[in-house]
Amino acid sequence: MMYYETIFPVRYYETDQMGVVHHSNYIRYFEVARNAMIEQFGYPIQDCERDGVTIPVVGVTCKFRLPARMGDTLRVTASIDAVPLAKLVIHQAVYRQADGALCAEGDVTLGFLNKESGFPTRCPEQLVKMIEERLNDK
Amino acid sequence: MMYYETIFPVRYYETDQMGVVHHSNYIRYFEVARNAMIEQFGYPIQDCERDGVTIPVVGVTCKFRLPARMGDTLRVTASIDAVPLAKLVIHQAVYRQADGALCAEGDVTLGFLNKESGFPTRCPEQLVKMIEERLNDK
Amino acid sequence: MMYYETIFPVRYYETDQMGVVHHSNYIRYFEVARNAMIEQFGYPIQDCERDGVTIPVVGVTCKFRLPARMGDTLRVTASIDAVPLAKLVIHQAVYRQADGALCAEGDVTLGFLNKESGFPTRCPEQLVKMIEERLNDK
Amino acid sequence: MMYYETIFPVRYYETDQMGVVHHSNYIRYFEVARNAMIEQFGYPIQDCERDGVTIPVVGVTCKFRLPARMGDTLRVTASIDAVPLAKLVIHQAVYRQADGALCAEGDVTLGFLNKESGFPTRCPEQLVKMIEERLNDK
Repeated sequence: MMYYETIFPVRYYETDQMGVVHHSNYIRYFEVARNAMIEQFGYPIQDCERDGVTIPVVGVTCKFRLPARMGDTLRVTASIDAVPLAKLVIHQAVYRQADGALCAEGDVTLGFLNKESGFPTRCPEQLVKMIEERLNDK
Repeated sequence: MMYYETIFPVRYYETDQMGVVHHSNYIRYFEVARNAMIEQFGYPIQDCERDGVTIPVVGVTCKFRLPARMGDTLRVTASIDAVPLAKLVIHQAVYRQADGALCAEGDVTLGFLNKESGFPTRCPEQLVKMIEERLNDK
Repeated sequence: MMYYETIFPVRYYETDQMGVVHHSNYIRYFEVARNAMIEQFGYPIQDCERDGVTIPVVGVTCKFRLPARMGDTLRVTASIDAVPLAKLVIHQAVYRQADGALCAEGDVTLGFLNKESGFPTRCPEQLVKMIEERLNDK
Repeated sequence: MMYYETIFPVRYYETDQMGVVHHSNYIRYFEVARNAMIEQFGYPIQDCERDGVTIPVVGVTCKFRLPARMGDTLRVTASIDAVPLAKLVIHQAVYRQADGALCAEGDVTLGFLNKESGFPTRCPEQLVKMIEERLNDK
């Protein structure tokens, strides 16, 4: 399984009048973690786009378990357990760093588009290789 | 089925460097439509919270079909086809107003919490009644 | 003076844990109003960018007078009282529609960049003309 | 001078269709840095609010010098050079970490409100002390 995690604090503007992080922000946290993952492993999203492939999100599911709050530090994870063909599924979760409590979890499905034509294309070879090499990580 | 739709233009800051609306914003559009719905039908979210019940999102699914862009006007819909017990499921969609193309669709599941205790509570009576009265709308 | 106003409700996700609209959102409201203005007057921002000119914000000032809240409908204004040369200054304000109370006001200064080169350029002719024609509006 | 800086990468969703960080996000970056500062120095914003004082932004100025982009790591600074009375002015800046280029700079003015009454109040004693102790830092 290819795995990555990144840690950052809640930002004040991410809270809402319920006094907790607005649910839409977990979807954004997910993105932060998976972009950090592919950057860390050598193929940041901006290189990918420069190579002519955009990677839109085509589906997302998220269950919200426990609200994060201002003052919390979050650990956000991304993991991949299959080589992508037309699509790439990433399992993602957000934990409260202090006690490991699960705040939110879900799956994000990415597609691959030719930047010029806008039509579906294959996952960039460099991304496939990066994932293949790490599938046997525990 | 209780049904509502609201119409508004894409905002520039909602776009990202792919040149389209960032996927997280559809989750926010969904919220705009369902809050407009309950306000229109007489029980706005701020009244609900004043009555001691917060309504967190506990789950969301979304499929992104076609990217909305700056310049597009969007029609965002919310529909409910069952009276809520512990949870309330709302079907939601975002259409491009000009040609009716479907941009995104999904389900949002809401829970009900006692604002003081933070514990789960029942759907407020006023909200149940509002939904019951409209379930037979076509 | 070229003048425009647009009206829309506060969105829930724009509130923060102080229970009011987060201050950064007024900066975004300003943008909504000025983009609506140039679209209304015939030269929407996406056409401008298609013509090879991007219009970055180079400066902003804002005074926050009275917090807007969920449930408020806002009237956001944009006005221009001088033809732009290298820069365009827009006076902007956000009012609470119900009673006309001023929530925030400020000035936004825009520059003009050649989209390809990234270098400063003149204000597009079409935009200059649009503004000139309306400077004598009261 | 009381001084603090914090470092974090640009997030993809913060970019817009100009291909750069949307200007409104620098206002949010400023907030991240000043909240990190007061947390670091021992009086995080959530404690302050728990003590009954909210700290709204009453004014902001920002000049945008050079656009940050996806892939950039940012260094965001906050500095205070006077003990607050009714208001607290914080000088803030955003630098591109790689080469130290200045992306944006401005001043943020904060007020102090009694959380219950909503009326202006004095800067919390603990915050005054924290600032006084550090005014002679270089």
